[in-house]
Amino acid sequence: MRHNKRSFYFNNHFMYDTIIVGAGFAGAVLAERLASQKQQRVLVIDKRRHTGGNCHDSYDGHGVLVHRYGPHLFHTSNRAVFQYLSQFTDWHHYEHSVLAYIDGQKVPVPFNLNTLSALFPASLAQSLENKLIGRYGYGTKVPILTLRAEDDPELKFLADFIYDKMFVNYTAKQWGCKPEDIAPEVTARVPVHISRDNRYFQDAYQALPKHGYSKLFDALLDHPAISVLLNTDYKQVLTIDFEREAMTAFGAPFNGNLIYTGPIDELFGYRLGSLPYRSLQFQFEHFNEAFFQEATTVNYPNNHDFTRITEFKRASGQKVDGTTILKEFPQDYDPQDSTRNIPYYPVFTDNNTALYRQYRALAESFGRLILVGRLAEYRYYDMDDIVERALQVFADEFA
Amino acid sequence: MRHNKRSFYFNNHFMYDTIIVGAGFAGAVLAERLASQKQQRVLVIDKRRHTGGNCHDSYDGHGVLVHRYGPHLFHTSNRAVFQYLSQFTDWHHYEHSVLAYIDGQKVPVPFNLNTLSALFPASLAQSLENKLIGRYGYGTKVPILTLRAEDDPELKFLADFIYDKMFVNYTAKQWGCKPEDIAPEVTARVPVHISRDNRYFQDAYQALPKHGYSKLFDALLDHPAISVLLNTDYKQVLTIDFEREAMTAFGAPFNGNLIYTGPIDELFGYRLGSLPYRSLQFQFEHFNEAFFQEATTVNYPNNHDFTRITEFKRASGQKVDGTTILKEFPQDYDPQDSTRNIPYYPVFTDNNTALYRQYRALAESFGRLILVGRLAEYRYYDMDDIVERALQVFADEFA
Repeated sequence: MRHNKRSFYFNNHFMYDTIIVGAGFAGAVLAERLASQKQQRVLVIDKRRHTGGNCHDSYDGHGVLVHRYGPHLFHTSNRAVFQYLSQFTDWHHYEHSVLAYIDGQKVPVPFNLNTLSALFPASLAQSLENKLIGRYGYGTKVPILTLRAEDDPELKFLADFIYDKMFVNYTAKQWGCKPEDIAPEVTARVPVHISRDNRYFQDAYQALPKHGYSKLFDALLDHPAISVLLNTDYKQVLTIDFEREAMTAFGAPFNGNLIYTGPIDELFGYRLGSLPYRSLQFQFEHFNEAFFQEATTVNYPNNHDFTRITEFKRASGQKVDGTTILKEFPQDYDPQDSTRNIPYYPVFTDNNTALYRQYRALAESFGRLILVGRLAEYRYYDMDDIVERALQVFADEFA
Repeated sequence: MRHNKRSFYFNNHFMYDTIIVGAGFAGAVLAERLASQKQQRVLVIDKRRHTGGNCHDSYDGHGVLVHRYGPHLFHTSNRAVFQYLSQFTDWHHYEHSVLAYIDGQKVPVPFNLNTLSALFPASLAQSLENKLIGRYGYGTKVPILTLRAEDDPELKFLADFIYDKMFVNYTAKQWGCKPEDIAPEVTARVPVHISRDNRYFQDAYQALPKHGYSKLFDALLDHPAISVLLNTDYKQVLTIDFEREAMTAFGAPFNGNLIYTGPIDELFGYRLGSLPYRSLQFQFEHFNEAFFQEATTVNYPNNHDFTRITEFKRASGQKVDGTTILKEFPQDYDPQDSTRNIPYYPVFTDNNTALYRQYRALAESFGRLILVGRLAEYRYYDMDDIVERALQVFADEFA
C-alpha cells in the first residue's frame, strides 16, 4: 500500500478559461467556437461516458448503427447552421418519412392527400380532396381546428377523424394523460397537408451525418484546447457558490465562465422543487431480415404501449445484414430512478413555466454563468435550433 | 464579453485518490481495480479522444469494425487474465492465422509442415518432413539456428531458405535496417513448427471482444468513481516536482498516487535524451467485395514497402457488405512529428536499455509514482501480458 507523503502547493496558474457542463450540441458547439475562435482553453464535462448527449449513436451488437436515445433526424432550413456543421461532417442525404398505423393500414403522416386516398373510399376521398384544394389551395397546411370550424360536414368529419385516429391517442400516450384530458383548442393544431408530399419535413436541408453523430461530435471537440471529462458528474469536480458568485474546480478557485447545459433545477439542488419532464424507455430489437417495416418510423397512435417504431438502417442507408428497430415507451421522469432519469420533453404548464422562471432568476445575477440548451432553458430545441442558439450565445457573450 | 469577477477560494477537499495517465489496458485495468476493489476515486487522463490506447477499434465510413492502430488479436494461456476480462466482455472465438507471400504463393507462417508442402517439390518436402519429425519429433518447435547447426545439407538449406525468404527482409522492413545488418545469432530465433497446425498462436484462449475493444474499455471504466479526461495532455493539468516529490492537479495540491503509463522519457522532459521506438503508418482501404484476401493477415516479407495486410472482418466475423483492409508501413518514431509520433515498438539496444535504466532511477525515489506499461517500462507487452502486469501491480501496491 502506497502512503501519501506531504506535498507542497505549487502555484500552478493553469486553468481552463471556460468550463462547459454537458457535451451535447449546446456544449460541443460552444466548446468548438471558444477554442477555435477565441483561443480559449475549454473543459467539457459530461456524466455519460460518451459525448453527443442524446444525439449519441453507436453500433449495436449486430453491427447496426443505432441512435441510443431515440431517432435523431437532422433537418433545417437554416443554411448557416447547415454550413457550420458541414465543417465537421459529410452528409448522408435522407428525407424522413413517417407512417401511422390507422385502421389496420400504414398511411402517411402528417395527414396529406395520399393519406386521404389510402383511408377513405375513392368517392369520399375525391370529394374531400376537391374541397380542400378548392378552399385552401394545393400545397398549403391547414390546422384541423380550422377544418372543424367549417360548415361543410365532410370537412368536419375529416377533422374529427384525424383528431380521433391520429392525434389524440398518440398524444395521450406521449404525455401520459387520458385522451379526454387533452383540450382540443390547445393541442389540435395538427395540420392537414394539402399535398402529395409524403415527407415528414419540408426543410431545405435534410440529412444525417454520413458517419454518424458520434463522429460529428468527435470532430467538433477535436481541438487541442478542448479537454473532455467523461463519466463525471460536474458536482464531483465543481463547486458553485451563488451567493459569493464564486466557483472552485478540482479544489482550486475557478475564475472563468461556466456554461451549463444540464437541468436548471439540478444546478440549484432542486431547492424550489423539480421541473417535470417526460422520459422514454427504449426497447431495441434485432431481426435477421433485410428490413422490418415499410418506413423509417411507423407511429402507433391506437395500438400498443409504444408510440412508434424506428428502423435505423432505413434512415442511415447502412448496408448491413439484419436490421435493428427501436420501440419507444413514454414514461414519467424521475431524477432519482435510474430507469427513468433521462429528461426528454419539458412539460409546458403554467406552473412549470413559472417554476422555471424562478430558477432562472436565481441564475441571472451570476454573470459568469451561462445557461444554454433544452434542460437549462426548459424548452424544446430541435437539433438545428440548439446549434443556432449556441452560435448566437457565442456571438452575444464572447464575440 | 463576460468579465471575470474576483472569486473566493473554497476549501473544497475533493480530489481523486489516484490519477492515471493513459487509458490503455494498463491504465484501464488499474482504474477498474482501484475503483471497484478499493473504493478509490480515480481520474484517467488520455491525450487521445478515446480510451483503449492502441487497442481502440471503431467502425469506419463503410460500417466495418477496424482496429485503428493495427490488428490486435487477443490470445493468452493465462486463465486468470482471460477470466478477469470476461467480466467486461463476451467473446468472439477466433484463432488467428497468417500467411506469408513467398515466391508468388501465400503460405502458412510460422513455417510449418504445410508450408513445406506448399513451397517445395513433393519429394524434397517429404524428405525434409521425415528428417524434421525423425530428429525433433512431431509437434515441436525448432529454431532455425538449430537447423543451421545440423550437418544435414537439406536442413541447412531449409534454415537458410526460411531465414532469407521469410525472415530477414521482413525484419529489415520492420526495423528499418539493411538485411545485412541483422545479426543472424541475435535475430534468427524464428522457429519451424513441426506440425500441421496453421494457427499463429497455440494459446488456450484466443478470442476477440465480441463487440469490440472499445466496448470492453467502456465496461472497464464504467464505474461511478472513475472519471475519464480525454483529449488532454496530462501536462496540461498535472505538474510533477520530482525533487520535492510533490504534484499539483488542476492547480491544487495532489497528494494521491500517480500511475503513469506514458513514455518515461516524456515524463522527465526528455532530459537524458529520447528513447527510440519504431512507429507505423497505416493505410486503410475499402473494397466493395465480400473478401479481399485468403486470411486475416498476409505478410509481405519480400514485396512492397508494407509489412503486412490485415482484413478485419475475417477476424471479427462481422457480417457486412464490403471489406476493409489495413496496410502497415513501418517508420521511425519522432515525438515531434505528428505523422510518426505514435511509439509502437521499443528498440532494444544496450544503449537504449541503459538510457531507460537511467530514467527509471530518476523515478524510483518518488514513492507515489508508479510506472506501468509498454511505454513507461520500455518493454514489449502483449495485451494479456499487460493485463497480467496491471493486476500484479494492483496486488503489490494497493491490495
